[in-house]
Amino acid sequence: MIEVSLVREAVKQRKARSESFLGFEYLRFSDDFREIPRGTAVFQETVIWGYPHIGRIFMLERGLREQFEKPFWVEEKIDGYNVRIFTVGDRIIALSRGGYICPFTTDRVQDFIDVRFFEENPDLVLCVEVAGPENPYIEESPPFVTEDVGFFVFDVMRKDRRDFLGHREKLSLLEKYALPGVEVFGRFTPEDTEQIKRLLLQLDREQREGVVFKEDSERGRRAKYITSYANLNDIRITARNMLQLPPEYYTNRILRIVLFMEEEGVERTEHLYGELGKAFIEGLFSAIEQYRKEHRVYRTFRCRFRSRENALALMELLHRTSKHIQVVERELKKEGDYWILSFDKIFLNMTGLLGHLLGGGLVFD
Amino acid sequence: MIEVSLVREAVKQRKARSESFLGFEYLRFSDDFREIPRGTAVFQETVIWGYPHIGRIFMLERGLREQFEKPFWVEEKIDGYNVRIFTVGDRIIALSRGGYICPFTTDRVQDFIDVRFFEENPDLVLCVEVAGPENPYIEESPPFVTEDVGFFVFDVMRKDRRDFLGHREKLSLLEKYALPGVEVFGRFTPEDTEQIKRLLLQLDREQREGVVFKEDSERGRRAKYITSYANLNDIRITARNMLQLPPEYYTNRILRIVLFMEEEGVERTEHLYGELGKAFIEGLFSAIEQYRKEHRVYRTFRCRFRSRENALALMELLHRTSKHIQVVERELKKEGDYWILSFDKIFLNMTGLLGHLLGGGLVFD
Repeated sequence: MIEVSLVREAVKQRKARSESFLGFEYLRFSDDFREIPRGTAVFQETVIWGYPHIGRIFMLERGLREQFEKPFWVEEKIDGYNVRIFTVGDRIIALSRGGYICPFTTDRVQDFIDVRFFEENPDLVLCVEVAGPENPYIEESPPFVTEDVGFFVFDVMRKDRRDFLGHREKLSLLEKYALPGVEVFGRFTPEDTEQIKRLLLQLDREQREGVVFKEDSERGRRAKYITSYANLNDIRITARNMLQLPPEYYTNRILRIVLFMEEEGVERTEHLYGELGKAFIEGLFSAIEQYRKEHRVYRTFRCRFRSRENALALMELLHRTSKHIQVVERELKKEGDYWILSFDKIFLNMTGLLGHLLGGGLVFD
Repeated sequence: MIEVSLVREAVKQRKARSESFLGFEYLRFSDDFREIPRGTAVFQETVIWGYPHIGRIFMLERGLREQFEKPFWVEEKIDGYNVRIFTVGDRIIALSRGGYICPFTTDRVQDFIDVRFFEENPDLVLCVEVAGPENPYIEESPPFVTEDVGFFVFDVMRKDRRDFLGHREKLSLLEKYALPGVEVFGRFTPEDTEQIKRLLLQLDREQREGVVFKEDSERGRRAKYITSYANLNDIRITARNMLQLPPEYYTNRILRIVLFMEEEGVERTEHLYGELGKAFIEGLFSAIEQYRKEHRVYRTFRCRFRSRENALALMELLHRTSKHIQVVERELKKEGDYWILSFDKIFLNMTGLLGHLLGGGLVFD
């Protein structure tokens, strides 16, 4: 429960607002507010807590020793988007990290999750990473999802509670209902650094994003660590949208790469010099090339729906929530069992700036 | 003249404030305010206008054709700091771009500028770039100043006026008083792109910053263009202070490098991939190395003064105006005819972040 006076204060400060979407009415926390994380949602009397922030370590060896007192599980961190899936009445819905009902994820739940799980556990919430080349939100995609999307359960919560089920309880539920989970690499201690480093070098080679460490203890402390591949990939992919990112986006990633090189030894990581430059430059070249050909900088997304209404609802959500990005539908057509939606996200700031610069315009800075 | 009501409004909005320094009382515009540029200063009835912003072109060929209708002079842009030097009563003082009286520049004027210029032209203002390894403000330094600093006159203004003397009038004054000027590469038209490109490739090889184009016309339109060397050098040098820079600092420079490659052809500029990565990574490595050795990230400055009082005044000014940077005096000692001041600028944010990260701390983003 969240106290009524707290809700009232959050609404007054515009940190929470009521939402009406897909036939649901609920309260959504659009920002962190006191102890309540962004994305927390209240349906009638039921609170679905926002997924908490997980801190990142930049130095593997020192960070693990500093952060963990007990053994911890190491799980794969998958490059997708984070949703919480649960029942409201007799319907199953998926909330995005920010607390919006996602029409795409909601549409596709039953393709990946056995609904018996929710029938038999109406009080549970699945925390799932949805990832793959045909998702409507992010350009990154893990190498092991080559079409459509995959669902990867990484945590289970209870309604009205902020904490997670323990690791073994989670695994037994995944097994019982044959739910797809993220890969678990094992249980380690802070002394196992060499083994964990080898694991991360392997993930890096396989173009995977990184890992989450979850302490096997009451306090359940967590931390994450990202591969250089993923840091570089973020830089490469976001070049088109460079002007819209928060100032620390690039400096953080560059620092992570440099601290990785520092920890691994420069001799073994020298290739990263060229790769960092390439990540920035090639991303921008492709934006320039696109602008020259089509006079706009954009990215096309495509995704599959069971129901046409959900595809339309996704477009409505994207129109409503996109800032500095123009979302334009290309096509919505039936192919076999699916409705295939394709649409463009046009990056307005980069489009405007490149138009100005390539036309010989002046910039005052 | 600036109208009294405008001054009053600027003060009210905290865009202008009165300053008292080195025995002078004046009004300083700390920000652009309506038509008045930042750095404008009012001494009694005399207005010293702020040096105007000069726009930058990112594409040389297209930019020159777009911006200039008539022939233009091409002058060297020197990597230093911009001051305006003039008389108040019987004293000669130098104002920084932001409108502070600079005790260092003021101290050294007579080493570089024949004071007869001011005696015979009390209504004129010299716009000067001060550059070299022993300046108190910036780490960059042009290759042709190997010790101390140099003064390079690039414009002449009149008191109470915003415009500049014409090119020929300026040159004849420089000649008459044997004043040091920036190098003038000639008078070109927008059709001379190939020649200008060759000039810029040469400046790039010589590790020089770039050029300013000044139209030889009534409107006197101006624009600047920076070499890749200077763009990369900025990235390399500012790594220690990365967290303090405005968000567009790096994205702008990366865009400039990419548009340079695009204009020159990638085959001929491929080396920039590695150099861009190196610029970021080496700068950060040196910050990390410094932190490990000395537990702080800093840069030592050293400069020469004629008078001890001016050295102390500079320290006072730096203490008063530095944000997120701690300025610590190392030494002030007499050597021959000069007082040698050395001091450190400690970059507090980077020091704090590296301490946190290298100690294995978590970052939430």
